[in-house]
Amino acid sequence: MRVDIGNALATEADPGIPEGALDDLDERVAGAHERIARGRADGEFGYAALNLPERTDPAAVRRAVEGFDPAVVLTVGIGGSALGAVTLTAALGADSAVDHYALDNVDPAHADRLLGALPLSETVVHVVSRSGTTAETLANFLVVREAMADAGVDWTERTVVTTGDEGPLRALADRHGLPALDTPAGVPGRFSALSSVGLVPAALQGVDLDALLAGGQAGADALAGSLTECPAYAYGAVAQALDERGATINAVMPYAESLEPFAEWFAQLWAESLGKDGGGQTPVRALGATDQHSQLQLYRAGRRDKLVTFVRPRERPDRPIPETDVDDLAYLGGESLGALIDAEFAATEASLAAAGRPSVRVELDRVDAEDVGRLLYDMEAACVLAGELAEVSTFTQPAVEWGKRAARGLLGGGDFAEAEAVRDKTEFVVE
Amino acid sequence: MRVDIGNALATEADPGIPEGALDDLDERVAGAHERIARGRADGEFGYAALNLPERTDPAAVRRAVEGFDPAVVLTVGIGGSALGAVTLTAALGADSAVDHYALDNVDPAHADRLLGALPLSETVVHVVSRSGTTAETLANFLVVREAMADAGVDWTERTVVTTGDEGPLRALADRHGLPALDTPAGVPGRFSALSSVGLVPAALQGVDLDALLAGGQAGADALAGSLTECPAYAYGAVAQALDERGATINAVMPYAESLEPFAEWFAQLWAESLGKDGGGQTPVRALGATDQHSQLQLYRAGRRDKLVTFVRPRERPDRPIPETDVDDLAYLGGESLGALIDAEFAATEASLAAAGRPSVRVELDRVDAEDVGRLLYDMEAACVLAGELAEVSTFTQPAVEWGKRAARGLLGGGDFAEAEAVRDKTEFVVE
Repeated sequence: MRVDIGNALATEADPGIPEGALDDLDERVAGAHERIARGRADGEFGYAALNLPERTDPAAVRRAVEGFDPAVVLTVGIGGSALGAVTLTAALGADSAVDHYALDNVDPAHADRLLGALPLSETVVHVVSRSGTTAETLANFLVVREAMADAGVDWTERTVVTTGDEGPLRALADRHGLPALDTPAGVPGRFSALSSVGLVPAALQGVDLDALLAGGQAGADALAGSLTECPAYAYGAVAQALDERGATINAVMPYAESLEPFAEWFAQLWAESLGKDGGGQTPVRALGATDQHSQLQLYRAGRRDKLVTFVRPRERPDRPIPETDVDDLAYLGGESLGALIDAEFAATEASLAAAGRPSVRVELDRVDAEDVGRLLYDMEAACVLAGELAEVSTFTQPAVEWGKRAARGLLGGGDFAEAEAVRDKTEFVVE
Repeated sequence: MRVDIGNALATEADPGIPEGALDDLDERVAGAHERIARGRADGEFGYAALNLPERTDPAAVRRAVEGFDPAVVLTVGIGGSALGAVTLTAALGADSAVDHYALDNVDPAHADRLLGALPLSETVVHVVSRSGTTAETLANFLVVREAMADAGVDWTERTVVTTGDEGPLRALADRHGLPALDTPAGVPGRFSALSSVGLVPAALQGVDLDALLAGGQAGADALAGSLTECPAYAYGAVAQALDERGATINAVMPYAESLEPFAEWFAQLWAESLGKDGGGQTPVRALGATDQHSQLQLYRAGRRDKLVTFVRPRERPDRPIPETDVDDLAYLGGESLGALIDAEFAATEASLAAAGRPSVRVELDRVDAEDVGRLLYDMEAACVLAGELAEVSTFTQPAVEWGKRAARGLLGGGDFAEAEAVRDKTEFVVE
């Protein structure tokens, strides 16, 4: 991975990082790196995520899906139990004969449509929940089981489970002899893309898991106590330093359709890890070149509260634009879509710089298994670093518990004071 | 449309609107409403958008697509030339036999995959560009034409154009006798969903255009000089008032998969209209219930710089959750996915209120043509109102011109100083 922070310096942008501040920042990075290395060595909760490339056993994943030859793999999970898989399969499996879908919401109309459209007898279901009790995931799984039964398909022959050591889903897998993989110990869901949580659908699509993990391992090997030596830390440190200087929004804008879900995965990583104690950059999901026609006006002329993170492959397959006799468009004819999107990227990056708006350029060589593994690993390391610099509890998400208890109480799943509060809503209705 | 601003009041939230400030705000709304009404009456640029429900001729749209019986409609457009159509077809056409896709980026790999997968002989192409010169759109159209020719399909028999009075696309339509519709006069792209720009694919899917426009007209009829009488203005005024009090981010979170593109459409509307002069709320696209497992931690415990806008249907088709013998999940059995997503919504809304974070609840009766027409119209009216209150030039997007010139220069489409600036990039590379 290659990170260019030139347009985030104070000479170019406001907010921006003064060159003189880079030394102080680098000292903070050195301290944080020591803490992270210690956490990794001790396998501490959360830090253990950065050991996944060497700890994940791709052979175990391949064994769990052995013998399946599906047309479709359906992930049943939510949040970190779905986004990693969606990101990997969108980036790497688009040309596979196996399609990947995720049932990661509890919208009845959507579930109806999806289950009505899928060839259930040729579908493999991957159910993912660490606790085995996630309400949305288990409800969806019950619905999927029933749809399969209604279609005369034996769900016990077509289900793979990834879950923790204990819990209802583990018990279910044991009872029915389902192929079952472990969620990785000490790794929060949003950091688990490079484990069985993210790898099962990719494996069914024929993605090269070894290359993917090798990319992650290259990221691990590159961790070093200075931001000038480690692209992951360069990104994390600059994002955090800009946040401290007022860039409280981080718009992630990949210039590749296949990386659109990456921005969504990043948004969870960043929001749940850093959004606490009244701080944390707000991630915004964007897409180049499309959002030049939607968000660029704001990024260039709105508040000076944004960092734009460009993510782009340096090489991509191309497609020529035919020559044309259409007036005024002759300049496009004989060019290619790749040249056009590259020009759009360069123009947009420069247009922000010309307006003094900070951006960072993150580059992959190309969208392949090794580079995508590296990208995900490096962004996780960047996030852990930013969490250290911000002195937050990176690996927890305490603020979501209130709502979970309230929802459970509303559904009659126990006595929870939170459910009472829901009923006290203050109304001011205009209709 | 029903708007509940109870959780945006200062008694409930920080930032929040003190009850005493509502009167002042309402005076500003009255003044802005007069300005808007005058603009509408004079058909002024931009304000004319709010006349579309009565000005759009659904019969002309139906005539333009008469005789086509496609399996797929493909929109070739970008930004406001695509997002409205995508929003309408996702919300209203999901059960149609006609699929809708948009080619709204210039990613060669994506174009290859999409054109390789589409049944081109059963596809109708809708090309949309007001100027007829939008580089991305015209490049894509040239590529689509060639793909059709390669597949032995006569593109002149399967193309509908929406464009302005003049320009290359109009000339092309005239030359080949293509069905051609006008982009509405005086209406910026992002405000054109309820015109031929947004309606053509919906018409091909059999969406009830009359009901859609009637919904928009109901929004027009409801415009009034007080926020307590007009839900559109209630929403726009509260969003703007919260922006002025520090809620500089507006996270739009529909609780319906079919409204996911609505959040994207809203993001363009809000960003391009209000993101200028160093101000403007940053729109963030979210999705309930999924993003409770991704963004909620940040919304509840991060900076107090966010308004969360919930959008939900009060009724929806439902699907039961089967009874289960799975331990710990008995409370879900016999419930429904609809009850679950409703409980999740209520719990999430209350969880933000309990943490003193402002939110607004926008409700439709159901996701149907009339209510979706109303939703889009009311959000446009809300945006125009917010623009008046913020005293910005709501209907222009001057900040995107720099990049357009730079890209054109880079591609050899003329001599532009901006292209030179691109070559002067400051680098600070870590790899």
